[in-house]
Order: sequence, then structure tokens, then C-alpha cells
Amino acid sequence: MAHWLKSQLTKLGATDIQLKDLGIQEHTKDLALPPVVLARFGTDANKKNILIYGHYDVQPALKEDGWNTEPFELVEQGDCLYGRGATDDKGPVISWLNILQAHNELKLELPVNLVFCFEGMEESGSLGLDDLIIAEKDKYFKGVDAVCISDNYWLGTTHPVLTYGVRGCSYYSITISGPAADLHSGLFGGVVHEPMIDLSHIFAKLTDPQGKILIPGIKEMVAPLTPEEDKLYDTINFDLEGFEQNIGSKTVLHDNVKDALQARWRYPSLSIHGVEGAFYNPGAKTVIPAKVVGKFSIRTVPNIEPRKLDEVVFKYVNEVFASLKSKNTLKVELVHDGDYWVSDPHNWSFRAARKATKAVWGVEPDLTREGGSIPITLSFQNNLNTSVILLPMGRGDDGAHSTNEKINVSNYIEGTKTLGSYLHFIAEEEKDA
Amino acid sequence: MAHWLKSQLTKLGATDIQLKDLGIQEHTKDLALPPVVLARFGTDANKKNILIYGHYDVQPALKEDGWNTEPFELVEQGDCLYGRGATDDKGPVISWLNILQAHNELKLELPVNLVFCFEGMEESGSLGLDDLIIAEKDKYFKGVDAVCISDNYWLGTTHPVLTYGVRGCSYYSITISGPAADLHSGLFGGVVHEPMIDLSHIFAKLTDPQGKILIPGIKEMVAPLTPEEDKLYDTINFDLEGFEQNIGSKTVLHDNVKDALQARWRYPSLSIHGVEGAFYNPGAKTVIPAKVVGKFSIRTVPNIEPRKLDEVVFKYVNEVFASLKSKNTLKVELVHDGDYWVSDPHNWSFRAARKATKAVWGVEPDLTREGGSIPITLSFQNNLNTSVILLPMGRGDDGAHSTNEKINVSNYIEGTKTLGSYLHFIAEEEKDA
Repeated sequence: MAHWLKSQLTKLGATDIQLKDLGIQEHTKDLALPPVVLARFGTDANKKNILIYGHYDVQPALKEDGWNTEPFELVEQGDCLYGRGATDDKGPVISWLNILQAHNELKLELPVNLVFCFEGMEESGSLGLDDLIIAEKDKYFKGVDAVCISDNYWLGTTHPVLTYGVRGCSYYSITISGPAADLHSGLFGGVVHEPMIDLSHIFAKLTDPQGKILIPGIKEMVAPLTPEEDKLYDTINFDLEGFEQNIGSKTVLHDNVKDALQARWRYPSLSIHGVEGAFYNPGAKTVIPAKVVGKFSIRTVPNIEPRKLDEVVFKYVNEVFASLKSKNTLKVELVHDGDYWVSDPHNWSFRAARKATKAVWGVEPDLTREGGSIPITLSFQNNLNTSVILLPMGRGDDGAHSTNEKINVSNYIEGTKTLGSYLHFIAEEEKDA
Repeated sequence: MAHWLKSQLTKLGATDIQLKDLGIQEHTKDLALPPVVLARFGTDANKKNILIYGHYDVQPALKEDGWNTEPFELVEQGDCLYGRGATDDKGPVISWLNILQAHNELKLELPVNLVFCFEGMEESGSLGLDDLIIAEKDKYFKGVDAVCISDNYWLGTTHPVLTYGVRGCSYYSITISGPAADLHSGLFGGVVHEPMIDLSHIFAKLTDPQGKILIPGIKEMVAPLTPEEDKLYDTINFDLEGFEQNIGSKTVLHDNVKDALQARWRYPSLSIHGVEGAFYNPGAKTVIPAKVVGKFSIRTVPNIEPRKLDEVVFKYVNEVFASLKSKNTLKVELVHDGDYWVSDPHNWSFRAARKATKAVWGVEPDLTREGGSIPITLSFQNNLNTSVILLPMGRGDDGAHSTNEKINVSNYIEGTKTLGSYLHFIAEEEKDA
């Protein structure tokens, strides 16, 4: 798709276009990564430079996964366009091409210089992109005034949003080793310290049953909720019942929207993902696993510093393990982490996006954050020293990564208008000091 | 091997011989089970009838698993005979043939009538054998006075043993269900009750870190340790250091032999085997598992009644779950169970085996129990209403089920003499009232 994008962008009048080879990366062996498409439209020194990020790769999909239509054919049914990538993220990428096309056909001058960065590895952790951003920050990306990313979703299905934050994620493993090999529970049950019993005791000390993190020192790192921030949650269009319908169970921890959204967006959470090394098949096996690796992660928010978090996690897990008085051995490690990102939702880029949304949709957008992580957002912000906005087109029920992914036609049309208008409003908006 | 056994037993002068077809069983689809070899030597109404059980099937083995020799060729090296089944249980089965051969060649009359029962499904849960025992109890097995099984091992490597008990096993699953499908921990962490967190809290309440069972009502069911029974442990040849070498770690819960052996043989234990439905692969996955099934089992001892045990387990797990105040749902179930077996180690059959051991080895045998379960022992005892003895040939380090399984030549020779002598001593021993 990189070559198709290149030919389209060329036809649309790109000032410059390059396919950036990311080379061979660790893990990918002799398989070359798909190139990053870099393109520039305009070099007018009197215009602002807006960087547009998107990705042309998608999640895998097979019709037999449960799709009603061929996943790699775009099918229009009712108000929806069905197909893998419809909303994540081919739809938004194509909409930028439509914006360029509209300007050409209407013979409208672009209000800003555009720098496009379309990658093909987003669904695989944006492998290689970080290095490229750093390499190009004073070259292709020099002078970028703001970054706009359309690669997330409305909170619900009816109200447009601007997104000003994502949580980070620190993923940990707890390895508990006992005997040299798995043992038979008949012969050794009651005779040896069982790693799986130790791990269960540690797991139970990570959070209480209501999800409250029990590791001391984390709560203290969380930025206090200001009255101004708290107020942002008062008017958000969100419906807990619909949310429970969406997840298929009435198992939400909170009884009101504000608590649920704050828990999802601006407070840390701890999830236990599973255990490596124990018995995991259906049926029964009378094994005492010799070595188990428990996996858990903490979603991070301002102002949790990842290294400080590691410190309190390691200290706590070691202390809990010591209190068990087990003769097994423990190792607790960070598997990977990505930092949180939060922007000022009232800065000049958000002001422009708010005006664009109001002009197109006739309503004020909700200001949202995401519970999950989009590490590339932070990489653009930090490396280019600029402001980033997440300006989504699709709805919360689009089913990105799922079967029958779709984007509503109305969202595609009005969303394209919103992104195009954003370019005009940001051209006029005064940059913050 | 059933047909080979039949031809050998015929040559050795069997009074009667039958291959019992077990038919098609549930689970085995259209695959016929290997037949049970039933044979009788002698019908003298003035002699005792001794039933000999063994099995001719073995665990799977491939040279590439780590064998130093071809697993299905018997190779003699030093004092050892290496090969799959050398000790479990082809060796002991063949030794019975040697005993018959020796009597034939020495023109010695057999001191008892012998009934052989050699099955081919022991390594697959003795499928079908229970039904056969019940079907034949008043036919082929009518009038059996005692059952002798040589299918376990010495406790260590130097001292012969007689085994008078095995623990039972009740295997349970705890199913906790939350959302309809797995969730992304970024989007839902901190917002929903996580089944894996609930399960961890329940797991941690099953035992303390030292393996003490926390479920009320189990301890009360355990038969009190009498001074006489306690004394049996005083003289047992067992070495904790060698045991720790054997399991490859210094993680034994006890600091003395008596506590360790009693924990292994005559007290219940609870092991946590694993979790079905959670993330179990290497690496990291930011999943909130929607439904997890925790597996644990309890090794049972006199006088724990399986149905009473289920009752206290179900009640306790439900109470712990209720205390979590989770909105998820719980189901706790028995997966399977097998009862414990304990014999009087001073009854006439054990007295005969003790004399045989002393005559051959020159020492008093240790009286041992097994931590694991051999359900067929109990089935013989209960259905034939007779006494069963476990009279092993091999050593504790023989590596049954493992690579490089072996039996020592000296154990094979002296063990064969012991089994043969047992027949002569039990012929003379006065039956208990």
C-alpha cells in the first residue's frame, strides 16, 4: 500500500515524497519492514507546518473469524462501510487524500504546509518509527508546528470528541522458581514449597478485589485532580448501561459515569494477565509447576515516573515474597513500558479542532482521554517538541481489531470535513506562547 | 504384548488363560482397548488363591527425549537394565514369569493357586479395569484370598519396603466469569471486576504459604495419629538431603524426616495446578481474561470422605468469593476424585511379605505409604473384599515415567526371589480372623 499511497500523493501534487526504508530490525530477522511514506505539500515559510500521522497497516482478518462480508473488500451496507481498516486506520488515511483532492478540485490553496507520515508497522508496535522520528526531527520534520493524529475513536456513538491524553503501561513479570522440574502433586504435595502457591499469595496482594492498587507509593505519585479537570467530566456524553452492554456483563466497578471515566483515563490501574509455566489446558493435570511466571501490568498516568514505579513495585513484591517465608526464589522484572501522554486540551491546536468540530457537527466536542497507550503520540511530542492532538473520525463501536470492523458513512464524510476544517482553523489560530 | 504373555503363560503350564476384551469405551471412540490377560495356575481347593496384578503397557518414550540408549531395547550397563518399562511395570511382570519358570525347572509345586491379572491400560487410568473386576468378582476372581501388586518403588535406593497405603485425590475447578470476551487492559483496566484478580484472591485463601490448608473442616476429618502409627516413622530409611538432590532444590517444607514423610503420606495436601483461560505464553499480552478456570486438588487420607470434602470445599470457596464482593460469577466443581487406600501393615499378607523380605534381603522392610494415588488397589480391596499388598522391586531413583528408566539387576534378582518367597510364606501364614 506504500507504493499506492506514493502514487496517489504524487498525483495530488506532493512537493516531495519519499519511501523511507526502516531496514532490518532486531526480531524481524531477514524480513524488511514496510516503508514509512513521507510526503510534503508546500514549503511556504509564511504558513504553519502541520504533521499528519496515520498508518496503512491493519490487524489480520479472516472471513471465518466471524465476518459477515469479505474483510478485505469494502462493503457498504446502510450507513456503514465494512472492511478491515475501515476505521483503523485506512479510512482516516484516505480521508486526508480526499481533503487534498477537494482542495485541488475546488482550486483552493492549502492553508498550511502539510507533512505526512504514514507508517506500516503500527499494529506491530510501530517498530522502527521512533528511530525515524529522531533521525528526521531536524530534517524532514524540521519546523513542524503541530501534529494531528486521527487514529482513535469517539467515546460513544453520537458525540464527537477531541482526545488529550493516553495512559502509559508498565508490564511486569514475577518469576518464582522451585524444583528443577515439574513434580507430581501426589508424591510431592505437602512436602515442597509450591511456586504457584507463592505466586497466588503475591497476586492477591497486588490489588484488593475492587481493583484498588495495594502497592504503597503509587497513589502518592498521581497528579491531584483539580476542580477544573474534574469539571471536564461533568458534561461528557457517556452511558454506563451501554458500556455494560458493550462488554457483555454487568461487572463495572463504578456506579456513575464520572468515577468510571476517571478510573479509565486519569488513575492508574493494575491488571493480572496470566501465568506462564503452570497447567493451562482444559481438563485435569496433577502437576506442581516447578517455575511459574506471573504477568501483570500497571496503566500509568501523570505524574508516575516509570523508573520510580519500577522501584516501588520491585520493593513491594520482594517484601511480600519475603513475608511468605518460602524457600523458592523470586525474580521480579520489567518486561516493557511506555509512558503516558497528556496535552493541554485548551491549547491552540485543540482550540482549532474545537472550532472545526463545532462548524461541522454543530456541537462542542467532548474532551476525552484513552485508557490504553499510543506511545507514538509521546514520541512526536517529545522529539519534535510540539503539540499533538488526537482527532478521531470513527465511533466507539467501530470494532477496530475485531470482526466486522466498520466506519459510518456519516462519520467518514463529516470526519473528513472536520479534519479539513481543522487545517483552516489552525492556520488562523494564534500559536500559544 | 498381551498375545506374547498368553503364549508364555501357556508354555509355563497355565490351567486356564483368557484375553479379556474390554470393548469400546467412552473417550476411546472406535479404538479397541488392549485386552486384559487373565490366567490361572492351579485349582487346588486346599491351597490359597493369590491374585497377582501387573500391567504390560508403558509410558511413551523417544530417544530424543534425552535417553542415552534406545528406550525400547533392554540395555545392560553396570548393575542396571535400561529401557522403558524396566521398572514400570514390565520388569515385575516378567519376574512373575521367571518365578513360574523356576518352579517348573526345579520341579517345585506352586505353594498357592495363582490368578494373574495383567492389564494394558494402567498408564491411561486403568480404563475398563474397574468394570472387569466387578464383572469377574464372582467368576474368575472368586475365592481370591489376597492380592499382591508389584508396581511401585522403594522409598530410597538401599532399603526394601512394603507399602500399606496411598493417598486419594479430589480435583476441583473454580470458574470465574466476567465480560463476554477478553478485554484490553488499557481500555478496561480499573473499570471492570477482573476474573483473574478474583481467582488470585481465592487461590491465596486455599493454603497459607507453608502449605497449610485453610479450608475449615478438613483437618477435623483426618484420622488422629496414634502413637503406634507414629512409631512406624521412627526407623524409616530416608534422607532429606538426598530427597532435595532428587528434586533439584532445597525447597522442602520440613526440617526432619518424620514430618516430611507424614506430610507426604498421612496428611492431606492442596496443590494449585494452574489457570485455564488466562495468558500463558512467553512474552507480554495486555489482556483482561474474560473467564478463568483455576485448577487445584486435595490429596486425601483416612478418614476424609470425598462427598463431605466436596461439601466443605464448595462452601468455603463460595464464602471467600462472596467476601470479595465481585460482580463476576463463580462456579466451583469437582473434576474427578479417587479415594485413598490404607491397609493394616501387620495383617497376614504383610507378615508373609515381611518374612520373605527378611529371608532374601536380610533386613526388616520399611513400612511405607505413597503420596500419590493407585485407584486400582482400592478397587481390588473393596470389590474382592480382600487384603491387598504393594510389594515393590525397584528403587526410588528408577525414573519411572522419566528418561533412562532402569531397574537394578540386583533389585530384579533379589526382588524376584522376594516375590517368589512371598508365595511360599503366605501359603504357610495363618489368615487373620
